[in-house]
Amino acid sequence: MKKTLIVGTVAYDEIETSKGSSGKILGGVGTYIGLACSLFRLKASVVSVVGGDFETVHLELLKNKGVDTRSIEVMSDGKTFYWKGKYHKDWNKRDTLATELNVLADFEPKVSADFTSSEIVVLGNLHPAIQGAVLDQLVKKPDAIMLDTMNFWMDSAIEELLKIIKRVDIIVINDEEAIQLSGKDSLFSAAEEISKLGPKYVIIKKGEHGSMLFGDKEFFVSPAFPVKEVIDPTGAGDTFAGGLSGYLSEQKELNFENLKNGIIYGTVLASFCVESFGTSNMEKLKKEHVLDRINQLKAFTKHSV
Amino acid sequence: MKKTLIVGTVAYDEIETSKGSSGKILGGVGTYIGLACSLFRLKASVVSVVGGDFETVHLELLKNKGVDTRSIEVMSDGKTFYWKGKYHKDWNKRDTLATELNVLADFEPKVSADFTSSEIVVLGNLHPAIQGAVLDQLVKKPDAIMLDTMNFWMDSAIEELLKIIKRVDIIVINDEEAIQLSGKDSLFSAAEEISKLGPKYVIIKKGEHGSMLFGDKEFFVSPAFPVKEVIDPTGAGDTFAGGLSGYLSEQKELNFENLKNGIIYGTVLASFCVESFGTSNMEKLKKEHVLDRINQLKAFTKHSV
Repeated sequence: MKKTLIVGTVAYDEIETSKGSSGKILGGVGTYIGLACSLFRLKASVVSVVGGDFETVHLELLKNKGVDTRSIEVMSDGKTFYWKGKYHKDWNKRDTLATELNVLADFEPKVSADFTSSEIVVLGNLHPAIQGAVLDQLVKKPDAIMLDTMNFWMDSAIEELLKIIKRVDIIVINDEEAIQLSGKDSLFSAAEEISKLGPKYVIIKKGEHGSMLFGDKEFFVSPAFPVKEVIDPTGAGDTFAGGLSGYLSEQKELNFENLKNGIIYGTVLASFCVESFGTSNMEKLKKEHVLDRINQLKAFTKHSV
Repeated sequence: MKKTLIVGTVAYDEIETSKGSSGKILGGVGTYIGLACSLFRLKASVVSVVGGDFETVHLELLKNKGVDTRSIEVMSDGKTFYWKGKYHKDWNKRDTLATELNVLADFEPKVSADFTSSEIVVLGNLHPAIQGAVLDQLVKKPDAIMLDTMNFWMDSAIEELLKIIKRVDIIVINDEEAIQLSGKDSLFSAAEEISKLGPKYVIIKKGEHGSMLFGDKEFFVSPAFPVKEVIDPTGAGDTFAGGLSGYLSEQKELNFENLKNGIIYGTVLASFCVESFGTSNMEKLKKEHVLDRINQLKAFTKHSV
């Protein structure tokens, strides 16, 4: 059973979409990745920080899923990271209504000794300096380091981001951000350029349009799992990364074939995620539901030419 | 060998993209569909109209591909339909710089007697009244009537368009237009709503993101064939429809399985189309190139979960 180290926020969100309002709910990159990972046979630890207001029921939720929460530091006199956002009818557009960094402002990640030799490391979307501080605590080279990032860090911390990109095996990035990071105008050229920055594998997420995987002269494309009604896209990308890394943690080695399969898992997990507000679906999800949708996705893409 | 009746413009285009300018070149919906069809074993006739300025070399081009041009009326004292457009860096956006209807203004389609009993009918994107006039000349119910249309006709001739939609088996429409036509906010609901208007099969084109096929409780999704460099997207949708109908013309019956396979052909043909200005690639294309890319597309989407 491989050990998987996850770094990412554990937070409270408040989300408005055309389908309703969530109220204040559990959220955060680390939460979504952890929940997705919990569907696989692995030992996962989430490195994060929360404030004194963080409800124990939410820590218990992760623990009950088998996620090691010892590296989620509780700063009793601080408040948990909070984000409030509103999605447009076009799901790709959202407005941030409030961001309160709170305890995240001074976050210094501390990896528990158990997990400094993790085989899989997932650097969730977060300040690259924090991602780097996690890598610095590793005592053994992992089988796979996966990085998720976004345009915010390209705009505000590009130097630190480039240093992290150099150290990872897999980068997960969305289509617009791949274009921005590479300065190229097609996704193929963008992936080629980004792989020159370090990662052996580049995964470009296209939301409802699926994702693409670029390896050394190899290419894979998957449509998204078709969802009849999106309720809340928050956490879909993190869930995708969590499903992918979870699948990888069950495999012997990191190679193109395993990445393709992992993308199918990530794709299907993300489809459940967006069908409810916040982590609601992900809390209830069972492996058999996942396998069922994987079979459906296979049927949806099958032809005979 | 099934007979395929195509109605669509045969025209001159002038295209500007970020990759260059085409100058005045052969274009038109009927031209693209005809060229795509010519890769299949069928007897195809294009119903259209051109002016006295239309160069015989362009009629010969279609004839040499085995396309029956007897229903392309030549109005010697008129000028050929002309369109000039400029694409943005975002290929989905384009500005029309000039549209000269010319001989198209008074076009009354005349289907040659040979083709009034066609098994496959492709109503290329054109005024629905013209599409209807073609259907009115049929003496036998075809195996498949396929309709391509666009938002322009929804805005300017919705009543006539709805009448045509009622009479067809397959509608091909892009994603934004499916949303507009249906008034729904998801592609699934849109397809469901559109099928209530008449067509048994709804195909939604998503450009570089591929396409979706909706049947009675059945669903299929295909990514686009990944193209390294788009030169000119003009005619891609028509080529897609042409490849699909061409494949169908070689099959015994119209069913979901054959439509799925036809979509794969249409997808691959469209990928060649966009890699050159105008019809340039489509004029040279051989079946073996198509089969080669079909195999590539299969490899690009293959996984083992």
